[in-house]
Amino acid sequence: MSDEAPTSLLDRLSTEEKIALLDGQDFWRTQALLDHGVAAVMLTDGPHGLRKQEEGGDHLGLADSVPATCFPPAVGLASSFDVDLLRRVGAALGRECRANGVAVLLGPGVNIKRSPLCGRNFEYFSEDPLLAGELAAAFVAGVQGEGVGTSLKHFAANNQETARMTVSAEVDERTLREIYLPAFETTVRRSQPWTVMCSYNRINGVYASQDPWLLTRVLREEWGFSGLVVSDWGAVDDRAAGVRAGLDLEMPSSGGSGAARVRDALQAGTLTGAELDRAVGRVLELLERAAPGLAEPLGVDVEAHHALAREAATRSAVLLENDGGLLPLAAHGGTVAVVGEFARTPRYQGAGSSQVNPTRLDDALSALRSALPGREITFSPGFTLATDPGEDDEELRAAAVAAATDADTVLVFLGLPAAAESEGYDRTHLELPAAQLAVLEAVLAANPRTVVVLSNGSVVRTSGWVERVPAVLEAWLLGQAGGAATADLLTGAVNPSGRLAETLPVRLADTPAVGNFPGEHGRVRYGEGLLVGYRWYDTRDLPVAFPFGHGLSYTTFQWSDLAVEPDGDGARVRVRVTNTGSRSGVETVQVYVHDREASVFRPEAELRGFARVELAPGEAQAVEVGLDRRAFAYWHDGHGDWFVEGGEFEIRVGASSRDVRARATIDLPGDERPTPLAADAEVGEFLAHPVVGPRLRERLGGGEWTRMLEDPVNGQMMRAVPLVRLTRFPGFPLAEDEIAGLTDATGGRVH
Amino acid sequence: MSDEAPTSLLDRLSTEEKIALLDGQDFWRTQALLDHGVAAVMLTDGPHGLRKQEEGGDHLGLADSVPATCFPPAVGLASSFDVDLLRRVGAALGRECRANGVAVLLGPGVNIKRSPLCGRNFEYFSEDPLLAGELAAAFVAGVQGEGVGTSLKHFAANNQETARMTVSAEVDERTLREIYLPAFETTVRRSQPWTVMCSYNRINGVYASQDPWLLTRVLREEWGFSGLVVSDWGAVDDRAAGVRAGLDLEMPSSGGSGAARVRDALQAGTLTGAELDRAVGRVLELLERAAPGLAEPLGVDVEAHHALAREAATRSAVLLENDGGLLPLAAHGGTVAVVGEFARTPRYQGAGSSQVNPTRLDDALSALRSALPGREITFSPGFTLATDPGEDDEELRAAAVAAATDADTVLVFLGLPAAAESEGYDRTHLELPAAQLAVLEAVLAANPRTVVVLSNGSVVRTSGWVERVPAVLEAWLLGQAGGAATADLLTGAVNPSGRLAETLPVRLADTPAVGNFPGEHGRVRYGEGLLVGYRWYDTRDLPVAFPFGHGLSYTTFQWSDLAVEPDGDGARVRVRVTNTGSRSGVETVQVYVHDREASVFRPEAELRGFARVELAPGEAQAVEVGLDRRAFAYWHDGHGDWFVEGGEFEIRVGASSRDVRARATIDLPGDERPTPLAADAEVGEFLAHPVVGPRLRERLGGGEWTRMLEDPVNGQMMRAVPLVRLTRFPGFPLAEDEIAGLTDATGGRVH
Repeated sequence: MSDEAPTSLLDRLSTEEKIALLDGQDFWRTQALLDHGVAAVMLTDGPHGLRKQEEGGDHLGLADSVPATCFPPAVGLASSFDVDLLRRVGAALGRECRANGVAVLLGPGVNIKRSPLCGRNFEYFSEDPLLAGELAAAFVAGVQGEGVGTSLKHFAANNQETARMTVSAEVDERTLREIYLPAFETTVRRSQPWTVMCSYNRINGVYASQDPWLLTRVLREEWGFSGLVVSDWGAVDDRAAGVRAGLDLEMPSSGGSGAARVRDALQAGTLTGAELDRAVGRVLELLERAAPGLAEPLGVDVEAHHALAREAATRSAVLLENDGGLLPLAAHGGTVAVVGEFARTPRYQGAGSSQVNPTRLDDALSALRSALPGREITFSPGFTLATDPGEDDEELRAAAVAAATDADTVLVFLGLPAAAESEGYDRTHLELPAAQLAVLEAVLAANPRTVVVLSNGSVVRTSGWVERVPAVLEAWLLGQAGGAATADLLTGAVNPSGRLAETLPVRLADTPAVGNFPGEHGRVRYGEGLLVGYRWYDTRDLPVAFPFGHGLSYTTFQWSDLAVEPDGDGARVRVRVTNTGSRSGVETVQVYVHDREASVFRPEAELRGFARVELAPGEAQAVEVGLDRRAFAYWHDGHGDWFVEGGEFEIRVGASSRDVRARATIDLPGDERPTPLAADAEVGEFLAHPVVGPRLRERLGGGEWTRMLEDPVNGQMMRAVPLVRLTRFPGFPLAEDEIAGLTDATGGRVH
Repeated sequence: MSDEAPTSLLDRLSTEEKIALLDGQDFWRTQALLDHGVAAVMLTDGPHGLRKQEEGGDHLGLADSVPATCFPPAVGLASSFDVDLLRRVGAALGRECRANGVAVLLGPGVNIKRSPLCGRNFEYFSEDPLLAGELAAAFVAGVQGEGVGTSLKHFAANNQETARMTVSAEVDERTLREIYLPAFETTVRRSQPWTVMCSYNRINGVYASQDPWLLTRVLREEWGFSGLVVSDWGAVDDRAAGVRAGLDLEMPSSGGSGAARVRDALQAGTLTGAELDRAVGRVLELLERAAPGLAEPLGVDVEAHHALAREAATRSAVLLENDGGLLPLAAHGGTVAVVGEFARTPRYQGAGSSQVNPTRLDDALSALRSALPGREITFSPGFTLATDPGEDDEELRAAAVAAATDADTVLVFLGLPAAAESEGYDRTHLELPAAQLAVLEAVLAANPRTVVVLSNGSVVRTSGWVERVPAVLEAWLLGQAGGAATADLLTGAVNPSGRLAETLPVRLADTPAVGNFPGEHGRVRYGEGLLVGYRWYDTRDLPVAFPFGHGLSYTTFQWSDLAVEPDGDGARVRVRVTNTGSRSGVETVQVYVHDREASVFRPEAELRGFARVELAPGEAQAVEVGLDRRAFAYWHDGHGDWFVEGGEFEIRVGASSRDVRARATIDLPGDERPTPLAADAEVGEFLAHPVVGPRLRERLGGGEWTRMLEDPVNGQMMRAVPLVRLTRFPGFPLAEDEIAGLTDATGGRVH
């Protein structure tokens, strides 16, 4: 890296050199300009581990990578609801980047899980934007605290793999603002990622890679992003339009095509030198930021990172059910029959660009045998992970049943095969493989003391069998230490603390985007609007298998003394939590806000804060969660801004979106900002308007028109007529050209 | 009316005279030009009866009107599934227009019932576009056969009353084409209404009254409409833009504002003389068409029309349940206790512009007393229709219980009060008034032999009580003879034959447009897309109270011998229906098409034909329903046209969308029309394309790229990359500028 300050360096570059800097040098590296002492820096896939390819990898960047710690993918980490854990994992990843000379780790991915079918859900945190944003902000702070950059991705509305490089997400602004953008916004405002990665898709017809509204107005002007925007690999359509819109760096190398477009646009005058310099300046700033870290590589304590991966994994699994205290497994007792290939051959991460080459790999079977030396542990694979199940299935099943029959407890490890979910394509159903379900049924018939352990990156259907299984551990994908972590949880060495970051639906037909996902002919309609995840199930009062936020512990908690008080322009929520059981454990207080009455549609309730508290047996603690103004606001299309409508809000504190433990009401004053009225606004809108309502009433006088407008039945219909149209009726007291004066007084929009 | 032919008259009009003809002369009449012998003609509200206002009505056209036969509103007529009935009712209405010097009856309304909350649902036919279109086409043919015009309304996507004059329906083209437009299309193509009335709302931001795509391209160029487009009363925003777009006549009089806009636009050159002449010519043609009918008024046989209204009403009510054969009431037996004010004070039509001043009015109580002279019939109002229920409710309820207790059968008449549903506003819930439900509960506790008769223009929640009531007659709003018709059905003088033209949901939370209806800040998202009505409930497999198409009879039917054969480019469906009971009765065969496999999303099944057959006891008949090509097609956004994808279609014949009596499969060849590819189409789309796929394969050769594209896992991801982007990868065999040649060969779209 050059010693020169970026600005003076910028002045000395030729136009061709500037253009060159906007493109990758190869698949993973920025362009070096050796004459100016500018070195190439490496950006590397993640985000739950490093995927640094050796030199001379394939053209598509999918070949093997150097060994790195494989932490739990986002689907796991998110279930921790643990911002401190995310920060610590981030810091470990940052150190691994430093050790490997990597300048930027390409993550985290904060896209919202719109449909459980999305093939890349394992790489994303949640169906809830607040949870995703809090976790991502902590992760970014962790990585960047080590002097390594992150790339917040995929910006934005990239919620499916089907046609991901061309599809247009047809989504209204309120839905974008309230569901699909806040996780990006929180991360940018809170942690300033060095880079943001634009997504492949279009939004309302415009490629994210060349959308000035997205990349400049929202990201930079509103949220204050000061870093660099990089394209997802291959996301560039019109390179010059991208530079204009705010896409600074194209990756990977376009092979000269990007440079040619930029050169042409400069010559044609459709791209200015200032726009070019703006993008180049940001590339130089990134290189400058990366330089100190690259200059001082760090060593990595591989064992310590594995231990952290194990700790993270124990916090990422969710105990869904535990009837009759089947878990934890006691240190001594009868035989434990372990069934299912996944116990021996763990599924621990997803396929695609995030796939890490782990430093080591724990399996649950070995870990259980180590953890329970006092018990006999048998193993039967039950099924194979072959894509084409052969005729030995029946034999494997019979062996599993035989092993299960006389066991004290059966642990059945089920899950999605690797090919079932991946970057690059979406699922079409939520089913576990039939062969696995057949094993479960057979084992269950032989021995009802059966525990199911699930390994899956996106949700599977549990209804149909879960009702008959006493205990289920949703172990998602848990990274390289997931096997040991699973044993920790099953034996009670660690008390489960995970909470569902996404709803487990009863069946596919109940999920929000049916009929809208994944779209067709280049478009996908975000027709369910705000009703994503639990917002859908709770507003429509649909049954679910397990609700958002759900998760059990081996101890029990009592909640009491809810207090909600105004605090600044928001509120402060306090609730006392007591560990009433006999083990230490973690409770997660979730705070949902329900708007009692609103002039716009609002989901039934929305997560606005959460806090994780660890308590010794008998210990009690007051848990506090702050709710800022935004926690009560909705995106107001009329104002083009967040808006709080005054009135009563119900604060619900719960252990899931459906397990509300206490409620309190707070009355908040609304924002005092009269809505600007359009030229064709309704009479009723004018009459109700604080600024122009009185003026209009006076002009109408007390005659026939006022009487008609106030008539309880017909008046309603009349008040819905645009005022400008009434001026055309004979005898109406206002003339058409008076309306502009009224709308102007409201700060009105031109229609 | 002038004796001159319209064209020569057009030549002789001054520009000012032409402009004047495009505006109403007053609230109900077109402009006269007495110097040219052009008389004003009257357009009058309907559609289920004439609402001709006396001269000197109020400014808004809501005052009383001359007496006219009040036929059942559309909600009732549609439940007949009886196209011949619609034709006969239309003809009677045409004769009443002729008798009153009315040139055009402002109906029928064919908007789709998107949400049960729409305040104007009673004026619309169905949630299904095929049913609405078939009925409306017959109605229009009936009216126009009498030499009187109709106005097909409200064109288009006017599916709510909230903000109806300004709201923009945000709806994609496939949804418009498959759900919201077909009823208009069928009526236009089949029956050529003299006029079409544009709606108040906007569609995707553009006012229907000035939308050239809607009013000219679709309506005239595609469907061949040859009549006049009139504005809904007050729907004009920009009059000049309207004339350009194809809105010919503004109603009511704009008081000179419309003329001024047109004059200014002509002077500014933004409106041409040819465009003006086109609109004026259509007005003159309408006057010409109306002239013969106006010249020869007809007399009306008021009694015969009342009898037709009664017949129509008997066909419009739907027998939802009849457990234990509680109905029909026998001629002799114990006391019949009639409970509920609606038995004495019928609710028979909806509020707003369609409200008719009836020639007479039957009530069910009197009709039952006449029909059952052999039985004692008591009456207790049970509740009042006052908007503010007073303290006498308890007394009324007690009296009803006393009357019910010892009765042989109790008839409880419940319904929506008039103020609950109206043009001009939407409902916010589906509930019957609490006082009415309290009466029902009390009566039911006293006497389980209880029949409920419902009077409501839009659906009410029945779940919660319907499970405990043995018999329910959904009598909707049945017009002026509804009381007598209800008695006909309850006593068995007429065997019920109505079928539900809309689903009765279990609860509001299950309905399709929750979260999307009625929108806010000037926009409403049609997010449920194609999943309207039974398409929603059946695709999502949700429980319903009573499914679309459901309706019982006092006799029983057996279905057999389903045969489905290719017929031209469509199919012919034949099924044998036998009356296996002891009364004459009507069965309605409904034909639903289910697409077994499709490359786009398709609803579970869609109604593509129906037939009503009347059978004597023991009689059998083969019922035939033809399915044209369109019955299998979907709107293909790529082609911008209807498209049949070849393959297997399941034909389901049923007595409701959920009561499928037989299924058969037909294999149809698809349309052979290769999809035009866009410049950024995916590699996979190019490879699969019949025209350019082979060319591309040849260019790729058999090397590394072909191998990567064919890789079972990574290949899927690669095939989703736009071909144009792959050209930028080093070593890809095609150059960027070769892509245009390929897309051109597909007839490709410019991106």
